[in-house]
Amino acid sequence: MSVTAAKGFSASGVAAGLKSNGGPDVALVVNDGPSHAAAAVFTSNRCKANPVLWSEEAIKSGSAVAVVINSGGANCYTGPEGFATTHHTAETVATALGIGAIDVQVCSTGLIGLLNDRDALLSGVHAALAARSTDGGAAAATAIMTTDTVAKESVSHGDGWTVGGMAKGAGMLAPALATMLVVVTTDADVDADTANAALRSATAQTFDRLDSDGCQSTNDTVLLMASGASGIKPDAAAFTEAVTAVCRDLAMQLLADAEGADHEIAIEVVNAASVDDALEVGRSVARSNLFKCAIFGKDPNWGRILASVGTTQAAFDPANLDVALNNVWVCRNSGPGESPDSIDLSQRAVSVTIDLKSGSATGTIWTNDLTQAYVHENSAYSS
Amino acid sequence: MSVTAAKGFSASGVAAGLKSNGGPDVALVVNDGPSHAAAAVFTSNRCKANPVLWSEEAIKSGSAVAVVINSGGANCYTGPEGFATTHHTAETVATALGIGAIDVQVCSTGLIGLLNDRDALLSGVHAALAARSTDGGAAAATAIMTTDTVAKESVSHGDGWTVGGMAKGAGMLAPALATMLVVVTTDADVDADTANAALRSATAQTFDRLDSDGCQSTNDTVLLMASGASGIKPDAAAFTEAVTAVCRDLAMQLLADAEGADHEIAIEVVNAASVDDALEVGRSVARSNLFKCAIFGKDPNWGRILASVGTTQAAFDPANLDVALNNVWVCRNSGPGESPDSIDLSQRAVSVTIDLKSGSATGTIWTNDLTQAYVHENSAYSS
Repeated sequence: MSVTAAKGFSASGVAAGLKSNGGPDVALVVNDGPSHAAAAVFTSNRCKANPVLWSEEAIKSGSAVAVVINSGGANCYTGPEGFATTHHTAETVATALGIGAIDVQVCSTGLIGLLNDRDALLSGVHAALAARSTDGGAAAATAIMTTDTVAKESVSHGDGWTVGGMAKGAGMLAPALATMLVVVTTDADVDADTANAALRSATAQTFDRLDSDGCQSTNDTVLLMASGASGIKPDAAAFTEAVTAVCRDLAMQLLADAEGADHEIAIEVVNAASVDDALEVGRSVARSNLFKCAIFGKDPNWGRILASVGTTQAAFDPANLDVALNNVWVCRNSGPGESPDSIDLSQRAVSVTIDLKSGSATGTIWTNDLTQAYVHENSAYSS
Repeated sequence: MSVTAAKGFSASGVAAGLKSNGGPDVALVVNDGPSHAAAAVFTSNRCKANPVLWSEEAIKSGSAVAVVINSGGANCYTGPEGFATTHHTAETVATALGIGAIDVQVCSTGLIGLLNDRDALLSGVHAALAARSTDGGAAAATAIMTTDTVAKESVSHGDGWTVGGMAKGAGMLAPALATMLVVVTTDADVDADTANAALRSATAQTFDRLDSDGCQSTNDTVLLMASGASGIKPDAAAFTEAVTAVCRDLAMQLLADAEGADHEIAIEVVNAASVDDALEVGRSVARSNLFKCAIFGKDPNWGRILASVGTTQAAFDPANLDVALNNVWVCRNSGPGESPDSIDLSQRAVSVTIDLKSGSATGTIWTNDLTQAYVHENSAYSS
């Protein structure tokens, strides 16, 4: 159900021939109202894809009636021709729905640096418009997949209202494929400011803490659309919580489907002077290829963790750090602690805990290990 | 010859049983004078190994008579016991030479988090003291190797004076093995300030621009010792140039010997607003696993380069970047340029040129590709 779990939404997914395998590659989600509040968060990469350039401007109205997403081509680094394709895509949806193009969000995913086949794409958009239905969520979630092995959907229920969502991608594990796209829908009656605040809070707690390989995509988009169809105005905190729950669930599905990964690793930094410090330390460890290789090799190599912590500006005493792997405190006071012999790194889930002993803030970054399969998939991929 | 190429130096390399393979693992280089000016540059990692903690303090005098280096154990994250081992090592050399311990630099390389066998190490130090000779440079260069496949030595001649050096490591490709150690010697008659200025200039232009995997070691040390034995006081610029030449040669040897790498990649950033901007952009690309995997796969994937450039704060117009691979301008104005079909990435040497069109500064970062062999070596390594 995902994006059509909430009332007031129709969706579809069709095959337009953009994907070489002939699979579905154009998804459409339409907010049938009565209201159209929307908010979005985009990649912070300065080199953005054309659909991001379009959607960033369009969302400034605080409203969106539809989002059209194509896989099979990221429309990134394709110049004015590529931007024109995005514009035509939005216009096509707008004309069919009798709205302005500015009310249409556009996302693309797939290879970068290559122009999409505009005619094929626009034919697909027409087909998606014709196919949309109130139970089309699963079809849409399938049509946005690239290297994903499973479609990613989530639903959270409030008191008489619903939040649903779909996602594609694997953290940043395949940015050449244009990475992470997320559409969240709700029938709660919220205004644009409430939607925006909830979405920013949710992404900061979830997708922003997913750091699969430190690379930052050109196409990342997280969109929230609210139809108001439930007629219920939820408490802002409850609404934020429901949006966060859907985003967290989708983030964990992205992590679990990371290409070529053997492990999902939660790096929790505790007793930090600030949340920013905790996240800086967690991100630094998550970006250490040596640490990530060690986990792939099932090696409880806490020295590589400390070496990464040491590259940050966070507040801590270098001689007084503790590190646990799967809750075994293998490093105490920056030296050897408990024996790592009991640590079993054969399971997919691995936890790292780093105690900075410098405050009371906590933050967790999720990442994957670095495997030979990762290198294979990201080197053999033909561009 | 390397560290004994310049007059006034004796060196040795002996087997002390620290390495499991029984190979030479203790190196000694002694400055027999008449002068003892010295300078050093250490890792900027805040979590430093014990020998770095020692040597950083000792070098503040601007003088060093000897450096003792062990492989087979990094003495890192080993607490007060480990620091005591470093101290004993320095004292042992000092007593034998009739100098103060503060005049002895200590370096260690090998596994981290494990205490070295102090008795074996000190026996090795005694043996190294007994074995030193004015043609012991090659033995010393061999004794500092860990996963290096070849010993790394270099010599540069001035007008009546000489600079020589040895190095171990592979950029940051094996920080669990404590990475990069460099000893440069000269018989030029320079004071500590001149030595310090020359070394900092040289490392900034060479080792600091080597970024194999973005990881930063806990033990990195680059040491320069001047004996004055030539009796010649060179021009500061000529001296800096000679030190830089030796450092550059050693840096390129480190890059070429990077574990598991198939390619050496020079990332030159041109027309940057500042050298800092150029280096920030180069480093960002050098740290992109996706870019590094693409080069391993011989894939001229310029989109991954642009995506990395976009994550920096450097001055540029995201819509107006040019990128060349092996001098073919595959990206013009942030869109497709010349056909990449003629690009041959089968050679080890790969050049990337990024034109920021925002100034006149240039900077180059050297890195390696990311290979399945890298993952294997850094995951299978037992700690």
